[in-house]
Amino acid sequence: MSAIDDLATELSKLPGIGRKTAMRLTYHLLKQSPEQSRRLAGALETLVARVRRCSVCNNLTEQDPCALCADPRRDQGILCVVEEASDIGAVERAGEFRGVYHVLGGRLSPLDGVGPEDLSVRALVERVSHGATREVILATNPSLEGEATALYVQRQLAPLVPLVSRIARGIPVGGDLEYADGVTIAQAISARREM
Amino acid sequence: MSAIDDLATELSKLPGIGRKTAMRLTYHLLKQSPEQSRRLAGALETLVARVRRCSVCNNLTEQDPCALCADPRRDQGILCVVEEASDIGAVERAGEFRGVYHVLGGRLSPLDGVGPEDLSVRALVERVSHGATREVILATNPSLEGEATALYVQRQLAPLVPLVSRIARGIPVGGDLEYADGVTIAQAISARREM
Repeated sequence: MSAIDDLATELSKLPGIGRKTAMRLTYHLLKQSPEQSRRLAGALETLVARVRRCSVCNNLTEQDPCALCADPRRDQGILCVVEEASDIGAVERAGEFRGVYHVLGGRLSPLDGVGPEDLSVRALVERVSHGATREVILATNPSLEGEATALYVQRQLAPLVPLVSRIARGIPVGGDLEYADGVTIAQAISARREM
Repeated sequence: MSAIDDLATELSKLPGIGRKTAMRLTYHLLKQSPEQSRRLAGALETLVARVRRCSVCNNLTEQDPCALCADPRRDQGILCVVEEASDIGAVERAGEFRGVYHVLGGRLSPLDGVGPEDLSVRALVERVSHGATREVILATNPSLEGEATALYVQRQLAPLVPLVSRIARGIPVGGDLEYADGVTIAQAISARREM
């Protein structure tokens, strides 16, 4: 039954999907109408055919420049730097930021062989060197690699931008001190603000 | 970004895949080579185009009759009745059974509106009525619906087949009495065998 095995093999290449889940999904699709499988196949084809990188901010988009860069209501003077295009969705859902973005396309990770030349840092430096940028917010993840990446980017941008800032680290809203790790609590204390 | 949302929507229709996982899978595919997405799309197209039901045993197959029914080394006199085509893989992996199969295509479930006419019971009765079947093993799941289905099928087949048997229920190999439920333990005791 090679068509079944073929699909299961392709599905099991996806992250978090093992062989058993892949077989379960395949049999699920066989029980559904053929239309559902065809729509999924079509959506995949459309994805690879249409989605590309925005030439301004490196976001994933179907139009160039992307909808965020092209939006006249957004403040082009404030840049939020994120690791991945998927991080933009997270920031947008928060509804707090009205500037534009820059997607690095990863984080510095010497162990994985990812160096500065693998990230779109040069394009970012080029972008802010025109002088219209008032602030760059570094919103890389608060992980070891994310912090190293933020530090590297900050050093590149410091001579060019009036203000380079970093998102706050601390106890998540709704979180519990009892279950927070020591490093996070230390950050939350050192970054305390007067009430 | 409708191509991204479209794919995420299609993926989130799959069982066990929520909106967040669907987005993660979509972004993963965008980071891979376009070839991987195209192979996945191709495997889906091939699946719906090629896979059909075996006219003998109701298994999912690309050829009719299926490879199992067409295999001359398998004993056509012993039938193993399973709920779903995916169950055949589980029995085959055990390597214990050398007969042929019959796929019911589900289990009796009045609450879900699944009655006897929704399962391929009539085809099974037709199949065994030729008189060449020596034994039918009922390998529906040991759940409430699976047991009811086995009982129903047994009643239909009893006048036609010399032996209708049911797979054994008991403590799984490698399992632990302490964590087994009472019904299973009761089954394991009542089905005890002399050593």
